Amino acid sequence: MNYTVPDIAFLHELADAADKQTLPRFRSSLNLHVGSKPKEGFRFDPVTDADREAERVMRELITARYPSHSIMGEEFGLTGSGPLQWVLDPVDGTRPFLCGLPVWGTLIGLTVEQRGHMGMMSQPLTGERFWADGQHAWRSGPQGTAQLQTRKGLPLEQAILHLTSPEPVARHPEVNFAALEAQTLMIRYGGECYAMAMLAAGQIDLCLEYGLQPYDIVALIPIIEQAGGVVTTLSGDRPEAGGNILACGCPRLHEQALRILNS
Amino acid sequence: MNYTVPDIAFLHELADAADKQTLPRFRSSLNLHVGSKPKEGFRFDPVTDADREAERVMRELITARYPSHSIMGEEFGLTGSGPLQWVLDPVDGTRPFLCGLPVWGTLIGLTVEQRGHMGMMSQPLTGERFWADGQHAWRSGPQGTAQLQTRKGLPLEQAILHLTSPEPVARHPEVNFAALEAQTLMIRYGGECYAMAMLAAGQIDLCLEYGLQPYDIVALIPIIEQAGGVVTTLSGDRPEAGGNILACGCPRLHEQALRILNS
Repeated sequence: MNYTVPDIAFLHELADAADKQTLPRFRSSLNLHVGSKPKEGFRFDPVTDADREAERVMRELITARYPSHSIMGEEFGLTGSGPLQWVLDPVDGTRPFLCGLPVWGTLIGLTVEQRGHMGMMSQPLTGERFWADGQHAWRSGPQGTAQLQTRKGLPLEQAILHLTSPEPVARHPEVNFAALEAQTLMIRYGGECYAMAMLAAGQIDLCLEYGLQPYDIVALIPIIEQAGGVVTTLSGDRPEAGGNILACGCPRLHEQALRILNS
Repeated sequence: MNYTVPDIAFLHELADAADKQTLPRFRSSLNLHVGSKPKEGFRFDPVTDADREAERVMRELITARYPSHSIMGEEFGLTGSGPLQWVLDPVDGTRPFLCGLPVWGTLIGLTVEQRGHMGMMSQPLTGERFWADGQHAWRSGPQGTAQLQTRKGLPLEQAILHLTSPEPVARHPEVNFAALEAQTLMIRYGGECYAMAMLAAGQIDLCLEYGLQPYDIVALIPIIEQAGGVVTTLSGDRPEAGGNILACGCPRLHEQALRILNS
């Protein structure tokens, strides 16, 4: 197939446009209409016009620049087809967004032949971005610009585990969460996409998430992989289609944790 | 008794000094030594030299300016006595600090006759501060400076509940957490002192925390109260001594939630 992969600068343009829609609505009741979408296992799944407007402006920019590309977004579904697809979650972490907690982010992923190739996570309150350019992963923000590298070589008993919400644990008895949790140093909750960025940055060792949609994970896959980490479904398959997902900074630890979760 | 209560500017000076010790160590393995203190119910209770150095510099400033004041700090205990006491938690949320998640903060409280009077929460990565000057509560940061006001008048079924960690729930069967959780709109985990600041800011309605120490809550009491909220133990007593604590943006909701938790 013959196609040109966009430059990482375009992902920053998309993030700039999304930031202009999300940040002014963060902690503001003005221009923020909260609704609820039906979702398995949650009685309330919030959506705001920050989600909708951020996806809308990103779609406009993509369609203008790359009319042949496909787009899949959380709010407006799938348009187009072809080897290059943009996968958008305008506000990953609408719940912390509503709570005023700065652990949400705008996720922008690009898949080539269904495989995560470039990714961007933008958190405009902290002014941070975490991205993967196809080869390496990077961060910028108040602490400067640096390459992202996962933490490697720690034994499981010194590893930090993250899970956004404990609610799905009881609904998934086939996943031996308790065994994994018991063998780690500590567990942390509530981090959403920000926790995955911190895994890529070498702060967190294991991120487990249940029932992810493609738009929840696609942008994060290249960030994790190009920082040296591993991310798969709990069956060990490619994670682009979502599902129950384990990300790990260290390949050996990933193998070990997957074995425990499936035991 | 005859004493002069310090100006709020001094709390900002203390926060400036603490920020210089905490932020450079955040996400840095340089100058960050992690240890563990024994603590009920957790197999790992981290402490870093960010905690120790931030408390040390704050103690120095207080002792130089107000040699007659008492100081209670998480890392170095109690010194002095008298009607004015500084209560310091140099890093509230050492766990998110280790994870690289920006929901930790430096807590600086001042009690007068054992009652929370002024308070400061500083989060240097976001550049945010939340404080109470003895009359009103305020925030400053990338979104500007504004007075803090809690959210009032929401029915429980539209309220957002926060709990930092689900781990203590099972150890406290006398607290009917499940009944409260079932009647709220949604629950959020992992926010530490940042969630209490967001309660003062009107984003979160209820914050429940188990087994707090005085330094975990004293600085937050005036911030919550001077923003219009209510914070007590689950017995309805003053919260300065810590314990199981419920903070709420709305007095009526606080009464209702306390009744449910004790049912």
